[in-house]
Amino acid sequence: MRDLYHDELDDIGNSLVAMTYLAGTAMERATNALLDGDLNGAERVVSDDTAIDALRADLEARTFLLLSLQQPVATDLRVLVTTLHLVADLERMGDLALHVAKVARMRYPDVAVPTELRDVISQMGKVALSLVDKVAEVIKGRDVQLAAAIEAEDDSMDALHRKLFTQLLADNWSHGTEAAIDMTLLGRYYERYADHAVGVARRIVFIATGSMPAGSAAVKPPKN
Amino acid sequence: MRDLYHDELDDIGNSLVAMTYLAGTAMERATNALLDGDLNGAERVVSDDTAIDALRADLEARTFLLLSLQQPVATDLRVLVTTLHLVADLERMGDLALHVAKVARMRYPDVAVPTELRDVISQMGKVALSLVDKVAEVIKGRDVQLAAAIEAEDDSMDALHRKLFTQLLADNWSHGTEAAIDMTLLGRYYERYADHAVGVARRIVFIATGSMPAGSAAVKPPKN
Repeated sequence: MRDLYHDELDDIGNSLVAMTYLAGTAMERATNALLDGDLNGAERVVSDDTAIDALRADLEARTFLLLSLQQPVATDLRVLVTTLHLVADLERMGDLALHVAKVARMRYPDVAVPTELRDVISQMGKVALSLVDKVAEVIKGRDVQLAAAIEAEDDSMDALHRKLFTQLLADNWSHGTEAAIDMTLLGRYYERYADHAVGVARRIVFIATGSMPAGSAAVKPPKN
Repeated sequence: MRDLYHDELDDIGNSLVAMTYLAGTAMERATNALLDGDLNGAERVVSDDTAIDALRADLEARTFLLLSLQQPVATDLRVLVTTLHLVADLERMGDLALHVAKVARMRYPDVAVPTELRDVISQMGKVALSLVDKVAEVIKGRDVQLAAAIEAEDDSMDALHRKLFTQLLADNWSHGTEAAIDMTLLGRYYERYADHAVGVARRIVFIATGSMPAGSAAVKPPKN
């Protein structure tokens, strides 16, 4: 019985990694769809989001069942409680990728991102992917050091977010209010995506050490 | 031992209600500070947010301890697992009130909200408060019917959010890009606040019925 239990715990861990990659793929495709004005790419992100939602529901149900049937203590209990938080963060990351895709879809056949902002959005997309790859490694290995690197990389996202605002507020902004609204929301989606990646990393630190990093909220609140 | 345990469960429930009211007071004060350009009011929301964060950490720790020591099953287990989700939503609602307060503070001594948008923001603040009052009642009584009313009230918030965008995109918008950015972010803060209130209500339905409302995510994704 205990072996089946630990097999299931391992399987939940593997599903968490799979869910992380799904959230990463969603943001990669959403960013490409956004920058290329690619309607099919945007639609695919929208339709694929149901798979991420379903994975969350499945992982929550399985975690609840293990809590109920096995009544774990100590590290196993921490892993399961943490799993509930991680799937919430990862589902939200999928939702944020979905929102990016919906901006691309809403502006099609136009491209939502003005030429001079392509670079900063492209960089935000790259940081998001790099974060997700690190998060997957952290989940696989519970590597507390890599979790710290994720916090540092999140600072890059915040810097890009500030850069975006600087460009929006430049005197020569010529794209009107609608584009300003789009870019404000897009900036927030990428920034929140990174915040949730940090939230996942912090939760892994909780599994590894039994306490959250000093002064940290479960999901890093944005700095604005 | 079981009596102490149920006393602690009740006490956690009371703390959840208290946390809900703190999140409501924060948004009420933030909205007033925003509309009045009240720096002291904004500062108070910022400093009071640490109490909400601390309450979350305390409730998470106490919930984990009960899971560990009492190994509850059935309804008690559902209540405790749900508590972990509720405190996450309630803390986030506090963060969103904090963000509103920070916009007020950033624009002081100016008032961030242009005259013609005062009404829609004021209404969003009122819906937020009404939602929080209902959420507190739902937590106290686990009233599934009131949870449904919360979903309906959230629709009012979404309608106000659309109205805000309509006004921002009107041809006679004369307040420039900075005000458009502020109003875009403010609209999102209120809308997300309502989404988390809905998330709390849905979780209570989960306690009462053992399943989530059909097709619902744990935290309602916004409709944009």
